[in-house]
Amino acid sequence: MRLTSFTDYTLRVLIYLGAQRGKGRLATIGDIAAAYGISENHLKKVVHHLARQGYVATTRGKGGGMRLARAPREISLGGVIRGAEEDFALVECFQQRKPTCSIHGACTLRKILAQAMDAFLKVLDAQTLENLLRPEADLLKIFGERVALRAK
Amino acid sequence: MRLTSFTDYTLRVLIYLGAQRGKGRLATIGDIAAAYGISENHLKKVVHHLARQGYVATTRGKGGGMRLARAPREISLGGVIRGAEEDFALVECFQQRKPTCSIHGACTLRKILAQAMDAFLKVLDAQTLENLLRPEADLLKIFGERVALRAK
Repeated sequence: MRLTSFTDYTLRVLIYLGAQRGKGRLATIGDIAAAYGISENHLKKVVHHLARQGYVATTRGKGGGMRLARAPREISLGGVIRGAEEDFALVECFQQRKPTCSIHGACTLRKILAQAMDAFLKVLDAQTLENLLRPEADLLKIFGERVALRAK
Repeated sequence: MRLTSFTDYTLRVLIYLGAQRGKGRLATIGDIAAAYGISENHLKKVVHHLARQGYVATTRGKGGGMRLARAPREISLGGVIRGAEEDFALVECFQQRKPTCSIHGACTLRKILAQAMDAFLKVLDAQTLENLLRPEADLLKIFGERVALRAK
């Protein structure tokens, strides 16, 4: 069972922006790509998604970039993950309007799996981005070193 | 977020064998393939796995087939799913011995996701195959019709 790498990257962008907030400087996709060693192309889609969902504010043009649009404690991890995952279709009958499984209608598995999924998301609903920013100093040190390395 | 189809089929085989228990007749892979309309090849691997894990007992030769090796109430869904899923590596740092994510060590996401996964599996640990066999009469009716159709 896995989350998509899109969701993974969504969380990484938020961690980066959360750690950098209050630095008085907007972050760029290049900074985040250097900080994690992941491709700018992937990150563009992730940032576009986060902006559309209201987590990130972007400014275009020279000196432009992005920052968090909300305080870290107001960004629930359950909300971020629900927004980023394509679906939570644990088995095929979750996603089909016309289920093809022969026992659909007589099967209670779907209900039990939905309860398990609820329990999973409930844990994440109780956590915010703020909880991912400790220890913040360690994160800033790592990000600072990697972004500086790129500038050389 | 999804379970693999291997896990899905594992559960379907157990539901079939659970509903058929006490019928005094061993089930064949052909029966189960007909009951669900899925390929015998996929099912062979699933049955082999279930036999190795001690959920299913198989008898070879003419008149051979399979049956549940334990009572449905003694088969925990959490156990079945843990045994069938390749891993529960929600994000890449769960599965790597040498994590490549730059913030590994300063990141608390893994711990939080592991808590959510535990909550997911705890719900399934509290459920057994017996809970999937209600309403049993409906399941038997569907299976009976589909297997009879194949015999024609």
